[in-house]
Amino acid sequence: MKTRTEIQERISALRQAMSARGLAAFIVPSTDPHSGEYVPEHWETRKWISGFTGSAGTVVITLKDAGLWTDSRYFIQAEEQLEGTGIRLFKDRLPETPSITEWLGSVLQKEDKVGIDGWVNAHQEAETLHRELTQNGLTLVTMTEDIFTSFWEDRPNLPQAPVFILDEAYTGASCTEKINRIKDTIARNGASAIILSALDEIAWTLNLRGNDVHCNPVFISYLLISKEGYTLYILEEKITDEVRSYLKGHQVEVKTYSALAEDLRTFKEKHQGILQISPLANEALYNLSFRYADTIVAPSPVALMKAVKNETEQDGFRKAMEKDGVALVKFLRWLKKAVPAGGETELSIDKKLYEYRAEQTGFKGISFDTIAGYKEHAAIVHYEATPETDVPLKPEGMLLLDSGAQYLNGTTDITRTIVLGPLTEEEKTDYTLVLKGHLQLQNAHFPAGTCGTQLDVLARIAMWKSGINYLHGTGHGIGHFLCVHEGPHQVRMNHMPTPLEPGMILTDEPGIYKAGRHGIRIENTLLIIPDQETEFGKFYQFEPLTLCPIDKEAIIIDMLTDEELTWLNNYHESVYNRLNPLLNAEEQAWLKEVTSPLKR
Amino acid sequence: MKTRTEIQERISALRQAMSARGLAAFIVPSTDPHSGEYVPEHWETRKWISGFTGSAGTVVITLKDAGLWTDSRYFIQAEEQLEGTGIRLFKDRLPETPSITEWLGSVLQKEDKVGIDGWVNAHQEAETLHRELTQNGLTLVTMTEDIFTSFWEDRPNLPQAPVFILDEAYTGASCTEKINRIKDTIARNGASAIILSALDEIAWTLNLRGNDVHCNPVFISYLLISKEGYTLYILEEKITDEVRSYLKGHQVEVKTYSALAEDLRTFKEKHQGILQISPLANEALYNLSFRYADTIVAPSPVALMKAVKNETEQDGFRKAMEKDGVALVKFLRWLKKAVPAGGETELSIDKKLYEYRAEQTGFKGISFDTIAGYKEHAAIVHYEATPETDVPLKPEGMLLLDSGAQYLNGTTDITRTIVLGPLTEEEKTDYTLVLKGHLQLQNAHFPAGTCGTQLDVLARIAMWKSGINYLHGTGHGIGHFLCVHEGPHQVRMNHMPTPLEPGMILTDEPGIYKAGRHGIRIENTLLIIPDQETEFGKFYQFEPLTLCPIDKEAIIIDMLTDEELTWLNNYHESVYNRLNPLLNAEEQAWLKEVTSPLKR
Repeated sequence: MKTRTEIQERISALRQAMSARGLAAFIVPSTDPHSGEYVPEHWETRKWISGFTGSAGTVVITLKDAGLWTDSRYFIQAEEQLEGTGIRLFKDRLPETPSITEWLGSVLQKEDKVGIDGWVNAHQEAETLHRELTQNGLTLVTMTEDIFTSFWEDRPNLPQAPVFILDEAYTGASCTEKINRIKDTIARNGASAIILSALDEIAWTLNLRGNDVHCNPVFISYLLISKEGYTLYILEEKITDEVRSYLKGHQVEVKTYSALAEDLRTFKEKHQGILQISPLANEALYNLSFRYADTIVAPSPVALMKAVKNETEQDGFRKAMEKDGVALVKFLRWLKKAVPAGGETELSIDKKLYEYRAEQTGFKGISFDTIAGYKEHAAIVHYEATPETDVPLKPEGMLLLDSGAQYLNGTTDITRTIVLGPLTEEEKTDYTLVLKGHLQLQNAHFPAGTCGTQLDVLARIAMWKSGINYLHGTGHGIGHFLCVHEGPHQVRMNHMPTPLEPGMILTDEPGIYKAGRHGIRIENTLLIIPDQETEFGKFYQFEPLTLCPIDKEAIIIDMLTDEELTWLNNYHESVYNRLNPLLNAEEQAWLKEVTSPLKR
Repeated sequence: MKTRTEIQERISALRQAMSARGLAAFIVPSTDPHSGEYVPEHWETRKWISGFTGSAGTVVITLKDAGLWTDSRYFIQAEEQLEGTGIRLFKDRLPETPSITEWLGSVLQKEDKVGIDGWVNAHQEAETLHRELTQNGLTLVTMTEDIFTSFWEDRPNLPQAPVFILDEAYTGASCTEKINRIKDTIARNGASAIILSALDEIAWTLNLRGNDVHCNPVFISYLLISKEGYTLYILEEKITDEVRSYLKGHQVEVKTYSALAEDLRTFKEKHQGILQISPLANEALYNLSFRYADTIVAPSPVALMKAVKNETEQDGFRKAMEKDGVALVKFLRWLKKAVPAGGETELSIDKKLYEYRAEQTGFKGISFDTIAGYKEHAAIVHYEATPETDVPLKPEGMLLLDSGAQYLNGTTDITRTIVLGPLTEEEKTDYTLVLKGHLQLQNAHFPAGTCGTQLDVLARIAMWKSGINYLHGTGHGIGHFLCVHEGPHQVRMNHMPTPLEPGMILTDEPGIYKAGRHGIRIENTLLIIPDQETEFGKFYQFEPLTLCPIDKEAIIIDMLTDEELTWLNNYHESVYNRLNPLLNAEEQAWLKEVTSPLKR
């Protein structure tokens, strides 16, 4: 935690830099040039300038005033962290809170200039800002220099972790094959070049992985693919001789990270034809492309290619799930004994879970920060235990545990709500409603062309009949040893048009959250596989990849239909059969018991 | 049926008129100025110029060539009717068929002019034509004169049926109340005037009905609502003294139908502020508005107002359904005896159904042309029996009967698939799958904000598990003694974003169609009503309005869940209780039997 004075000094330094550039205000978002879920420290300018450590928020500094906009998850934390800094808290999404541009309109003079760093603002955000600032009589100035460089002295470097090759034995397709598919696909738009800036798309394309970003095995870079050649823009110290020679073998040239801007300025000297960029690219990249190349904007084709897993990746996922299943069975068996013995907390059990996973071959870390919420903590959807909030686990109520791991074969994401002791009737009813929703989606069959939005209700209809709903999505894609959240397909209440296809991965994670009481979520990862082809066309279904018992102790059997009971028993049978050979005799006996068929 | 020579003479006359106006081609659509489902004879120019009588199709005449574009429903009919006319058939939606604009691009010269009548082409269609013609090097000319007037000698007049008042006892809100709501709503867009051109919107607003259009109790007109006054543009002979005085009482001035164009040209002399028009308005209206008024385009607020029925309309629907239910019970009882006795056909039983409905008070005709399809005819989704296709009904297989009526209290739409004799196992299985889908949707509960697309899967998931699907929507809105199909809400596989609200009417009509074998559909009309309000917000549910037994003879009971069996039995119990007092003893006994609870 920085002292209030330090924060004030930093704001002052920014104001001097702003004055020198004729800016009346500067907007500092929480994003980086690659729009990923986690931001490397180097780009944590919003945190550095404000002292506010939450994951979401935007700071706005004027020459005299300052504000932070953040959402309800962070109201209390932000109030504490901003105290004495001179930065005011604006509670986002409350009706009385002005938007950033409305507020700037009210405190600045007409024609005043508002600066942003084009590299860390997505084009779509910048476009919205531009429109709204103009409506408020102000001018947006998009900078291509990083204004913090001049006064942030001990700024962390760009991440320098070495990049490594993910063997074709894991990826099932070579870098060259993937690049050729990308070139063929953009050619249908009339484009002969594309810049990739999403880190997971670059990692997937090149069959490389890195360690630059928390939980995501990616590396900071841009990738230009054109008919004249391929260039990876990356800090060169991250490239070992092995990787350099591998890239050379695939005709991929390596240049330093910052060289992209320069190469864009001379684009037409080296390239003919049209350049494609994504509407999600950052504003600086967007502007450079439009200025120096014949550019079209279209969604990156890599998102969809990457979402549809090939046979090798699918088999890898199955292996990763066996490893994860073994770790989880060992953990659950331990937990059920450890809690009554006392001394365990939300944080301590997460360490234990990590140890079990770390024993597995090919383990490369967690895929996101564990959510371990006991009793009413589980009702806070994004709860993450800290030493301040941590509580002891007692032999009563339920523990919600949402966790995942990275393995060389694949990425996992699983939630179980675990019975630690006696439950209320309401807890059991809600648990069974969540289970019904989970099973209804997992066992759906659907025709080609169906999108996630169409299936979402299957996971909700049982709880809707009891006047209950959850406000998060029901399912998301998962990368193959990549990001745990990936698109473009999703299962949500709002409209997500991408059709579901065989080879896509989806989570199935309905939940019920009752503030101050309890939270329940049951999540498996599913693979879309072919079902049958009839006079009505092709139909698809789901194969559950996750292998882990669902706690039977909270189920009210009479609330399940015969079909649901059969589905659950079949799932448990396959969990037992797949994991049994990988466990010792005591673990086998425990698993046998917890996966034994439920009967009326 | 016109002779080939007559058609050729008409085409020649059109070509002369085109030449005189410098047009190289003219496009004749099937639509009229009000974009309704049924077109009055006056505007059936496409039928007149081509001799093709199908409901959908577009004719394109060049100076030397001619073509009709229509879809697969009409390929055979069109081929017969076009023979010898010189008009070629273009089979729409087949991959080898050029679009109209592609074809024109290939047969015309660069810069050639292609004419349309702006009054009978919707703005959105005209915009697409303009874009595509430009891409093909051609120019679109939007005419505001009706080119057919000069040479179509015995052209039917505009419909002249008198307009009548629908009493507030039926509508539950006065014309003035409705106009004020419309003014308040458009004011939120900054508009102070609106032109309504959709006939059902005008009828709803003014609490007037007419007889100008087949099955729809509407009248040809435009309605201008502005802060300076209200004007109904309509052939004045249709306005009785009573209606004139009623309109005057609500400050609605009456002018002749064609005066709208003139009034728009002088719009700014009489009106201040902004005029709102719908993106669905015709192109002539759209162009006049943009030329002579400060215009914004926004969906008409009346569509949504009209879709949400008030208490009086809801009660009216319940009464209309009792009448319709009585007619249907009498009919079904008769049918089950008449078919084995012999001599009945698809067409003859429709006459009988009409007679039973016509006995009901407040009956004002059918709400759409009956679909009565026996055996394999039922697999043709838009089948309408004609003397040529009509077949005798035998005591075997099933009859699909989709029909509806107009009553002063409301409009009905119901489908039953009726068992006439022995069935195959496949027929019973498919019938039960359709019933399961129907019941799952009818018994859904859902939170405020849910749209129809989200619920659609409930009606399909059971059949999807058997590799079966249907390609039509699951449900549509229904007007109150108005059009049997109305928006803006719908339940379909494609995205329909309008949230479902209490007071909206929806049909629930899944089906299974197996070409050459059988077709099954079960349809009730539902009303959205409140369910409960919880910590998760407001929830809604459906009240089934339709009162008519669902044929139990085709049900495979073991395919129904306990819940589905209970729902069906509860529905049948309420059908019996509501209709029983309105029937004679023999009918009561029959209804008792066919609505008695199904047991395993």
